[in-house]
Amino acid sequence: MKNIKLIIQYDGTRYRGWQRLSTTDKTIQGKIETVLSKITGEPVALIGAGRTDAGVHAYRQTANFKTRSSKPVAEILADCYRYLPDDILILEAYEVGMHFHARYNAREKKYLYRIYNNPFHHVFKRKYIYHVPEPIDFIKIKNAATFFVGKHDFGSFTSQKLKKKTTVREIYNIDLQHKDNILEIYFTGNGFLYNMIRIIVGTLIDVGHGKMDIAVIPKLLKNSERCLAGPTVPPHGLFLVEVSY
Amino acid sequence: MKNIKLIIQYDGTRYRGWQRLSTTDKTIQGKIETVLSKITGEPVALIGAGRTDAGVHAYRQTANFKTRSSKPVAEILADCYRYLPDDILILEAYEVGMHFHARYNAREKKYLYRIYNNPFHHVFKRKYIYHVPEPIDFIKIKNAATFFVGKHDFGSFTSQKLKKKTTVREIYNIDLQHKDNILEIYFTGNGFLYNMIRIIVGTLIDVGHGKMDIAVIPKLLKNSERCLAGPTVPPHGLFLVEVSY
Repeated sequence: MKNIKLIIQYDGTRYRGWQRLSTTDKTIQGKIETVLSKITGEPVALIGAGRTDAGVHAYRQTANFKTRSSKPVAEILADCYRYLPDDILILEAYEVGMHFHARYNAREKKYLYRIYNNPFHHVFKRKYIYHVPEPIDFIKIKNAATFFVGKHDFGSFTSQKLKKKTTVREIYNIDLQHKDNILEIYFTGNGFLYNMIRIIVGTLIDVGHGKMDIAVIPKLLKNSERCLAGPTVPPHGLFLVEVSY
Repeated sequence: MKNIKLIIQYDGTRYRGWQRLSTTDKTIQGKIETVLSKITGEPVALIGAGRTDAGVHAYRQTANFKTRSSKPVAEILADCYRYLPDDILILEAYEVGMHFHARYNAREKKYLYRIYNNPFHHVFKRKYIYHVPEPIDFIKIKNAATFFVGKHDFGSFTSQKLKKKTTVREIYNIDLQHKDNILEIYFTGNGFLYNMIRIIVGTLIDVGHGKMDIAVIPKLLKNSERCLAGPTVPPHGLFLVEVSY
């Protein structure tokens, strides 16, 4: 028995997200499991670090699976490249200790949300960036972003609240980069709630458009009120950048 | 009567090229003509500077059309943005002199061919770059490219020879940029034959792979022998960058 860690890149456009929901659903996990089962000759259960939503992309998603196959890891990697569609790419594969678990052992996750602030949309990047035509005040966004850093109850910033489960999370860092009408917002944290980044970004854009006062943010972080936070921005601007262990 | 010049950007992936061949064919010219006819309320004939092939992209294609419509140009531009699909974008529109002809008056055209030289393909740019997995010797390509600059008979570098028509063209400049496994080759010239850039790039790649000796190139430029030149590389790496007047 071997435990194999994979680093996976994908374009989420055509998929219903990472997580396999049924055997017929088109998911990234499902697609890779099918290929790995074919390669190893046995059923494979793949554990992903982050369950990205439908339409969300990944630069370096991390996953692991256990197998009895004696096939060398380099060969598994080459077979994956041969059989996977061109919007899913296994970048790296290595054998790791049997106790390694891609989700439970994840220490830090980094996400990126990309915004194109321009009157016209971006023809060539349109599937990988969120187009916002109305001018945004980037200074306001930068200031507003600082409120989210730290340990907070993000109950206002999730669209799926599970009773009894905590909505407290810690954002270690938010880094903004602005160049050529493209705004990139990097989020680093120990974990994120369902839709949390997309609602935070929707809230930041509302602030940048002057629709929301920056003073509302600390209130939202105190009292869970989803309806007062910004909208959920679309998935195609979001990337899982990397997972640290 | 007005003559209107358009600067057009498009992702050629879904189209059978620029030129309308029949009324049912999905072409960029056809798509824009349909929208312009709807906007102006009269049949529109659009003249493009370069007839890009199926799958070829454009950053700044140039075209013109004549219309009796009194609609202001800014309004035509806004209407185009509303009605065109998101892979075709009119960047600019202005009224020009009645004698301006986008094809006949074009003085210089600039094209770009992009190559991704990496064992794996590029997940996010895969539709806009040609993937070459085997290592290429970039110095050899740079040296080989210099032979093509100038006025030559490019009869070896076209897949459609029309009898009695000259195959002499002048390439003013070839500029190579190489960064992060991406090779960008810019071609500037007064005009290019059918498939000429794609066959030149195929030939350069053959040289870069050591499959063809660099000394063959001057011979190919002397005697038209299509079968001795390199293959025609795929269209999705090619961009019409701009047209000068």
